Amino acid sequence: MTDVLAPTALDLARLEFRDELLASGLLVGTSVPGIYGRSGDFERVIAGLDRILGEAFAALDATVLRFPPVYPRADFERTDYIASFPDLSGIVSSFEDGDREHRELLAAREEGRAYEGWLKPADVVLTNAICHPLYATLEGTLPSGGGTYDLSGYGFRHEPSFDPMRLQSFRMREFVFVGTPDAAQLYRDTWLDTSVALLASLGLAVQAVPANDPFFGRAGKMLVSAQLRENLKVEIIVPLYGDLHEGTAIASANCQRDHLTHAFDIRTTDGEVAHGACVAFGMERTVLALVRTHGTDLEAWPVDVRALLGL
Amino acid sequence: MTDVLAPTALDLARLEFRDELLASGLLVGTSVPGIYGRSGDFERVIAGLDRILGEAFAALDATVLRFPPVYPRADFERTDYIASFPDLSGIVSSFEDGDREHRELLAAREEGRAYEGWLKPADVVLTNAICHPLYATLEGTLPSGGGTYDLSGYGFRHEPSFDPMRLQSFRMREFVFVGTPDAAQLYRDTWLDTSVALLASLGLAVQAVPANDPFFGRAGKMLVSAQLRENLKVEIIVPLYGDLHEGTAIASANCQRDHLTHAFDIRTTDGEVAHGACVAFGMERTVLALVRTHGTDLEAWPVDVRALLGL
Repeated sequence: MTDVLAPTALDLARLEFRDELLASGLLVGTSVPGIYGRSGDFERVIAGLDRILGEAFAALDATVLRFPPVYPRADFERTDYIASFPDLSGIVSSFEDGDREHRELLAAREEGRAYEGWLKPADVVLTNAICHPLYATLEGTLPSGGGTYDLSGYGFRHEPSFDPMRLQSFRMREFVFVGTPDAAQLYRDTWLDTSVALLASLGLAVQAVPANDPFFGRAGKMLVSAQLRENLKVEIIVPLYGDLHEGTAIASANCQRDHLTHAFDIRTTDGEVAHGACVAFGMERTVLALVRTHGTDLEAWPVDVRALLGL
Repeated sequence: MTDVLAPTALDLARLEFRDELLASGLLVGTSVPGIYGRSGDFERVIAGLDRILGEAFAALDATVLRFPPVYPRADFERTDYIASFPDLSGIVSSFEDGDREHRELLAAREEGRAYEGWLKPADVVLTNAICHPLYATLEGTLPSGGGTYDLSGYGFRHEPSFDPMRLQSFRMREFVFVGTPDAAQLYRDTWLDTSVALLASLGLAVQAVPANDPFFGRAGKMLVSAQLRENLKVEIIVPLYGDLHEGTAIASANCQRDHLTHAFDIRTTDGEVAHGACVAFGMERTVLALVRTHGTDLEAWPVDVRALLGL
């Protein structure tokens, strides 16, 4: 995104949308970009969306698991997240010493100095994607035919932005399959179609497009090329700002191949390394796309959309 | 809690309860104490509890606000949390430099060294109590008669423990009042009674007892005495291990006086610094107390409890 000091027309449209959300009370601002409180009305839409997603994927009969917004650092270190997305990571530290060190910390703070030097790495990090905690729990336990998992929780991405679609802390609902490579590919394609249809039924002008993750730095450029070339990630985007921008992703369907299954040594019953696939919904992003499409007054949303969401 | 290497009878009872929860699948273990996945059954009880809490406090007509599990560090620094509870805090850092520094970070990591030195403080910290993000949003905005707020979200406490009641990351539902000192005191006492009755209706052997927060270090000892002497905090405890332990807190009702309102300069319409009061429920703790009381098989819970929770 362009520097806010030299805003483009797209920047201005995003700022205008953010201000509209704050003025309506749907979001409550804080002193940090991308960190907001959500209103009761906002949460009613979240709850409705959560319900219809559960219904749409009910045929999976997936194992429901809910992980908290932090997960073991040891599991984080088994992935290459800090190599691929260091700038998005959230590493946690805390104080673990005694009275003397605490007095030193407070003295430094009193003088306006950083006190990180008195902290120690904690045994958790912020959960970046809610499927990551899952993989560590699957080690060597994959059922025959593979496993399907219904996940929901908070993800964190350190990317302060005035764009209201780019939150630092946000909820995802994710349906994950882990099994043979062919079954994983089929799963991704099948449930991508279901997801596009579901989101279109809410009046969103969705489109499925090949996508890539924001890999960091020079080495990351090659990973981007490979991801696009092999069509591993598809995003479901919605145009929010007319001709100014092609659209913002509100969901994605991924073939993760053996990316995480290899790291956690997850195998199918025939002994091969399993492949993972997932369909993930950005809960806040979807609600915001609905607001951008139908307006800030939920009462004025189309009758069929309100009925679907139980509003 | 006693060192796990020399376990007491209470330690053993807690370990046994944890193992029972893991064996039943209600909790899914990770490599870090106090970090668990929650099963679909566990979440059904959470959802039922969340609903009946909303109904019990409906008369408040509280403003619903949901904050994410991280909140602005600037707001954190306006409180005395790092002075009073440094050991429980979760401070977040991330990577903000370029390719060269990233290569250095990865090289350090490759050698098994800490890479915190290449990270910078992020503009958020982990939310310790879900009412803290609220106060920063109230600055100078208190309606006449005070405000009531219905909050829910994840709190974080850095206290790794094998005791399943002591999670590092957990949900709270909290009903907060901010207004005149007299109204705050009345609010605390009134809704404490409601809360005790509600939890008792679920078959829990609850008891309201004077309590204190785990203030850190030598200076903290004085704060503990004051908190107890002035009866500022009442905890609702449930005995879980027979005669081995008096009981574990699953909810609390607090008079916070001007502790947070002073820090954020929140005033009543007459210009005085407002007082805050809250009733807070530990969602996971309450579910775990129910499991300990009624057993790991939800189907076998008392009919009236199942009906109340919609199971």
